[in-house]
Amino acid sequence: MKILKQHKNFDGHTCFWSHDSAETKTEMKFSTFVPHGEIKGCIIWLSGLTCTDENFITKAGAQRILANEKLMVICPDTSPRGLNLPGEHDSYDFGSGAGFYVDATTPGYKDHYRMDSYVMNELFTVIKEHFKTPNVSIMGHSMGGHGALVLALRNPDKFKAVSAFSPIVNPVAVPWGQKAFKGYFGEDQNLWKGHDTCELMKAGRKHNSKILIHQGTADDFLEKELKTSHFVETAKTSGQDFEVKMCEGYDHSYYFISTFIEEHIKHHAEYF
Amino acid sequence: MKILKQHKNFDGHTCFWSHDSAETKTEMKFSTFVPHGEIKGCIIWLSGLTCTDENFITKAGAQRILANEKLMVICPDTSPRGLNLPGEHDSYDFGSGAGFYVDATTPGYKDHYRMDSYVMNELFTVIKEHFKTPNVSIMGHSMGGHGALVLALRNPDKFKAVSAFSPIVNPVAVPWGQKAFKGYFGEDQNLWKGHDTCELMKAGRKHNSKILIHQGTADDFLEKELKTSHFVETAKTSGQDFEVKMCEGYDHSYYFISTFIEEHIKHHAEYF
Repeated sequence: MKILKQHKNFDGHTCFWSHDSAETKTEMKFSTFVPHGEIKGCIIWLSGLTCTDENFITKAGAQRILANEKLMVICPDTSPRGLNLPGEHDSYDFGSGAGFYVDATTPGYKDHYRMDSYVMNELFTVIKEHFKTPNVSIMGHSMGGHGALVLALRNPDKFKAVSAFSPIVNPVAVPWGQKAFKGYFGEDQNLWKGHDTCELMKAGRKHNSKILIHQGTADDFLEKELKTSHFVETAKTSGQDFEVKMCEGYDHSYYFISTFIEEHIKHHAEYF
Repeated sequence: MKILKQHKNFDGHTCFWSHDSAETKTEMKFSTFVPHGEIKGCIIWLSGLTCTDENFITKAGAQRILANEKLMVICPDTSPRGLNLPGEHDSYDFGSGAGFYVDATTPGYKDHYRMDSYVMNELFTVIKEHFKTPNVSIMGHSMGGHGALVLALRNPDKFKAVSAFSPIVNPVAVPWGQKAFKGYFGEDQNLWKGHDTCELMKAGRKHNSKILIHQGTADDFLEKELKTSHFVETAKTSGQDFEVKMCEGYDHSYYFISTFIEEHIKHHAEYF
């Protein structure tokens, strides 16, 4: 693990790191904010399409709140980098910047696009061994909201809490998800369903905490890609505890996230 | 005035604008955050070298505090754009991205690099006529901290308060200032002194508020370019009310600014 940049921030430190990943077989980057003194735990933040390890840590205004709550955050990049797989760099919603937090099974991609295992194995090891905390929760935005919900439903005991901003909750039913899952899994729809929040809840998966979701009503992607109503219906039917807040006039941007990040971090803090 | 982008944010709006400037004879951009409801006044934020209208509004985490204090902020770009003057794009510390908030007198530059008049005339008109508030204060970072201090000392009645992060306080005595002032004013050192915080205080200029400055001790530019101690000595001698806070371990970045922006905005709010 190499520190690329380090900045004192709210009495703690915002840092940018790189390390060699055994899962992706590439160098991977991530950012952290670690408050001064003892910490209670670590939130994993998963970013959306086109993002890197930098978006959340520069734009969300989370450090002040994390410092108050004595929680650190770790923000991985959204895909492996530095490869040149077929079609990897052709579009914003597949390949580089769009790993969807799954382990791919298709030729070429299966050797590197292992973001599920990267987060669940390597990032967890970093959190435990380097940052010395066994307590982890997860949140994310858009594709990263999908990642947070899916990883928490697939591994409920690993996360104390889970929440999301503008998540893709039903990827098997929307263009972004269908394109990505076809690219990463091929045509086998059973594999797709194993990485879909609504399908996982239908299959009986639950998280023990109350899942908090904020969604802007002026979000251009709401109708076509995010489908928040599918989450609400399925969570109700399946008995998952949740709170979905529809936020009048807010869009898909980090201005929306920065407005409500305090509520999310405080929600997580209650579970640590 | 055209709105380029608008995002709901902390119940108000973060917006990006462009307009035709009569002072610079170019299209100029600026950003704003305006809280919901009645506002008490407007803070002008001046950015540092290489910045645009975007840095502060995306990275400083100011909107939450501005919304609480019922203050708006307006952040102009740091120079005219879209020109091709001799030497304008050759270095990061002169020309584009480096207007230094002065009215140039050198050939070519004198027709466009009029950032002093752009702020004091056109931006003030925008604040009064479009945003409907007569109450204005000013703050900035590095080159923009220089701009805030100099404009406030040259026009004390126009600003209710003034503060700065890591300001260049004595440009006539440091490489950044000497290079810029030579380029914008030529060799006439009397013109240079009219835009130097320390020289203005020595010549009897004062601001009626307490000038607040935060400066990181781990700032790479402190010794060579910023020279905070020159401000402290001159302000003491000249009787200017001030508070300079040296912040242990903090650098020149927006992580530093975001840590202390709440203190600056609350300081300004006391004068509105």
